Amino acid sequence: GEPLCVMAGLNVLESEELAMTVGHHLKAVCEKLGLPYAFKASFDKANRSSISSYRGPGMEEGLKILAKVKAELGVPIVTDYHEIEQAVPVAAIADIVQVPAFLCRQTDLVVAGAQAVEEAGGWLHVKKAQFLAPWDVKNIITKVGEVTKNNPTILCERGASFGYNNLVVDMLGIPAMKALGVPVTIDATHAVQLPGADPRTAGGSTGGRREGVPIIAKSAVAAGADGVFLEFHTDPDKALCDGPSCLPLDAAEGLLTDLKAIHEIVNR
Amino acid sequence: GEPLCVMAGLNVLESEELAMTVGHHLKAVCEKLGLPYAFKASFDKANRSSISSYRGPGMEEGLKILAKVKAELGVPIVTDYHEIEQAVPVAAIADIVQVPAFLCRQTDLVVAGAQAVEEAGGWLHVKKAQFLAPWDVKNIITKVGEVTKNNPTILCERGASFGYNNLVVDMLGIPAMKALGVPVTIDATHAVQLPGADPRTAGGSTGGRREGVPIIAKSAVAAGADGVFLEFHTDPDKALCDGPSCLPLDAAEGLLTDLKAIHEIVNR
Amino acid sequence: GEPLCVMAGLNVLESEELAMTVGHHLKAVCEKLGLPYAFKASFDKANRSSISSYRGPGMEEGLKILAKVKAELGVPIVTDYHEIEQAVPVAAIADIVQVPAFLCRQTDLVVAGAQAVEEAGGWLHVKKAQFLAPWDVKNIITKVGEVTKNNPTILCERGASFGYNNLVVDMLGIPAMKALGVPVTIDATHAVQLPGADPRTAGGSTGGRREGVPIIAKSAVAAGADGVFLEFHTDPDKALCDGPSCLPLDAAEGLLTDLKAIHEIVNR
Amino acid sequence: GEPLCVMAGLNVLESEELAMTVGHHLKAVCEKLGLPYAFKASFDKANRSSISSYRGPGMEEGLKILAKVKAELGVPIVTDYHEIEQAVPVAAIADIVQVPAFLCRQTDLVVAGAQAVEEAGGWLHVKKAQFLAPWDVKNIITKVGEVTKNNPTILCERGASFGYNNLVVDMLGIPAMKALGVPVTIDATHAVQLPGADPRTAGGSTGGRREGVPIIAKSAVAAGADGVFLEFHTDPDKALCDGPSCLPLDAAEGLLTDLKAIHEIVNR
Repeated sequence: GEPLCVMAGLNVLESEELAMTVGHHLKAVCEKLGLPYAFKASFDKANRSSISSYRGPGMEEGLKILAKVKAELGVPIVTDYHEIEQAVPVAAIADIVQVPAFLCRQTDLVVAGAQAVEEAGGWLHVKKAQFLAPWDVKNIITKVGEVTKNNPTILCERGASFGYNNLVVDMLGIPAMKALGVPVTIDATHAVQLPGADPRTAGGSTGGRREGVPIIAKSAVAAGADGVFLEFHTDPDKALCDGPSCLPLDAAEGLLTDLKAIHEIVNR
Repeated sequence: GEPLCVMAGLNVLESEELAMTVGHHLKAVCEKLGLPYAFKASFDKANRSSISSYRGPGMEEGLKILAKVKAELGVPIVTDYHEIEQAVPVAAIADIVQVPAFLCRQTDLVVAGAQAVEEAGGWLHVKKAQFLAPWDVKNIITKVGEVTKNNPTILCERGASFGYNNLVVDMLGIPAMKALGVPVTIDATHAVQLPGADPRTAGGSTGGRREGVPIIAKSAVAAGADGVFLEFHTDPDKALCDGPSCLPLDAAEGLLTDLKAIHEIVNR
Repeated sequence: GEPLCVMAGLNVLESEELAMTVGHHLKAVCEKLGLPYAFKASFDKANRSSISSYRGPGMEEGLKILAKVKAELGVPIVTDYHEIEQAVPVAAIADIVQVPAFLCRQTDLVVAGAQAVEEAGGWLHVKKAQFLAPWDVKNIITKVGEVTKNNPTILCERGASFGYNNLVVDMLGIPAMKALGVPVTIDATHAVQLPGADPRTAGGSTGGRREGVPIIAKSAVAAGADGVFLEFHTDPDKALCDGPSCLPLDAAEGLLTDLKAIHEIVNR
Repeated sequence: GEPLCVMAGLNVLESEELAMTVGHHLKAVCEKLGLPYAFKASFDKANRSSISSYRGPGMEEGLKILAKVKAELGVPIVTDYHEIEQAVPVAAIADIVQVPAFLCRQTDLVVAGAQAVEEAGGWLHVKKAQFLAPWDVKNIITKVGEVTKNNPTILCERGASFGYNNLVVDMLGIPAMKALGVPVTIDATHAVQLPGADPRTAGGSTGGRREGVPIIAKSAVAAGADGVFLEFHTDPDKALCDGPSCLPLDAAEGLLTDLKAIHEIVNR
């Protein structure tokens, strides 16, 4: 069978140096383990809950950094776009163009991404929205299929709404999405986030979920996920965005070693 | 206290004639009952589950029809926008500019709408996403507040994700949102939709929910909603979009009479 | 149409004196409003989350107090049973014998209650479990119907599980249960409870939900509920059980006045 | 580390012969793999949704069969009890006495089971109710701890309510329950059940979930489960109870081989 794919890197671009450090380390770990690797980082977090949150360097500056990472490390790039106009420039750099979960039902945006990917080569990585069932993504695949020759969709599970301010990953959704005929990845980093701002916890509720990332990653690979999406930082507690669900860089090798072994068991 | 506000009309614009018929009737009913009325219709359904769904006449043609309704009937207009560039032209016609639920966390889109509304006068009607808790919308109000003098936000409840392919309206969310200091409306039409495409029911599951619209509307007004959002059609079963949750036009007077009476009881 | 039925009283029996005080006041309010009234109190809270919680006087002592309330005030009694052996003695005193929500799927317990009620006269008040859909209660009605001549079931909505440590009342469930051919009540008191013990809030999360009781009651009556179930105390903050969702006795008249008015509107 | 524990057998006792066949095969597979094995079967399904469902041979006859299985195969026995009076006789035969999920909050029942287990030796296997959060089971452990010297609780995850007629297994709940200091098992068979009776699917919705059992089992072991609970049948489609979520006996070896391998990876 195919080896486990690894999309990993930063939540959001903070500096070129950090991107290089993280990408270099993750590439080395994946090479050692024989796992295909793509570097992930966002240039804009367009859907922050608060207006004062750090959003990233923006598209122009961000794509420059990503192009340098691609050139220097020789790895494919994963990044997301948020507006129709961004599809073409993003697909010019990124090999895996990502549709954010909240936007995966915006027909024009998805179609623009699909067309840009078709033109440039590469894949469209669609995060399943928190409000969608696994089978609901079939319509998204159909939309992409209507404007591309070989449907380049990869689906990504990142949790479903479960009451207020919580997500749950339904592991039965992974084979349900694979049954649609496309590869499926698990975004273990976002799946452990506690969305929104629960006033009962005064915003302090996100601590401690970082330990959930390996749990979700291992479970989802055991359930049949073809790839894993993970965010790291050299100093997670100082990450400018989503630090509480971010893994330290030195956790990568141990986790990916386990994931590779589980993937081999369930695919033997 | 204030009378119950009524935002009502069509799901999506189908023709100028239909818009006039529906708007004329609803205006007459509301005048009779002494309820403030605004005509609602969308010009583009940008987030359909299927690529082949009817989407509407588009912005240019749609705003022309809405302008005619506004001029001829002398009523305020409610319509939604989906892209940053649409905010200014939409606010030029619409008195109540609506942020779609799936997009309510897109900071740039919300800010663009708030600025356009501030410039043109009017209100920003924000549908609470299915993946947000009532208290999570506080951050949206804050975003709008940062770019406007008198925060023009109206919040709209339209249901929260409840397992797969179902929504639930948590009536406790209505006072929770009112406590944030803004008016709250209930979109009883979308709250009864069964989202997505449950394969177990082969898409036939949406039938019969139409009877839920008055239930949700009456309950939410009893819970303290300041306004109600309802979609009608002269022939719901032939509506080009979301017919199964659409009310027949002749149901308007009976329902609004009950809603007015309940609103008076809970506000006396 | 029928007037709104009121089942109201104490969460758990604390003393004969308190039971008399609460029952006397509620009876007077309901007489004034022309609403049928039954006194409710439990003699044992058999399913407390903590072993150290107050559980009540037990069946023997509890039924004595309830018999005195019945004799002195001349009102029907509502109370719950938890074991098969309790069905007959409870039905000897209580006019409305209640099946607790967690136990409503225990066939032998439900059948024992139905048979005892059939023998003694009266009704079986079945709380819909938090894990059941409205349509799932059909099987319970069928079970009762198999051992009684005129099915004496009354269904009670008290919220459904909504993520962890939260409940939601789906107002569409009320007409769905009425469609099964039995009366439906709303337990607004238990519907606002935050079940379990969320460690993120260190148990302090239940404060403030008391204000939700009138919201749920008014919404559910607007949705078509035939009766309302409410718990009161002369001093809610000192109640031995579930004080945070308990209403002060002097709130009864205002709330029941509103509920009566809403009930009349939706049934006219 | 400890090897993965296997509790496996029949949903409900149908005949002594079937129990022996199933127990014999599973014992042989577990011996081959070096996994500790206990035979599971219920003698009464006391909480069926329908009154006409097969319930089993009852306690007296059922315990006789279980005693024979224990004697002949030399394996520990797992079975559940539903009433206080059953605790002592059940604990006399069963090494692992099981509290059904719906009943896990009934204090007297749990305490009776704990005392019977303390007397007879063995373990109390508590299924976490569908309406409880992982952290909520702490109170159950405390209740057991108050009447036993060495707390004999084993917690079992079998899914949480997720909207209507569906369950979801939150894999993050497994480490959350392990953090309470007790072993945790996964009941993969019941976790894939579609509870209740969705009228939209006319009861036909349970088909196909059988394939979910290995998914949930593998995921949960990857998430850290200490044991697995599985139900088999020689002819699942003819099983008298819950056939659609039952595995064929010849699937045992392949699945348990994978589970053992995953368990070793995550515990190395």
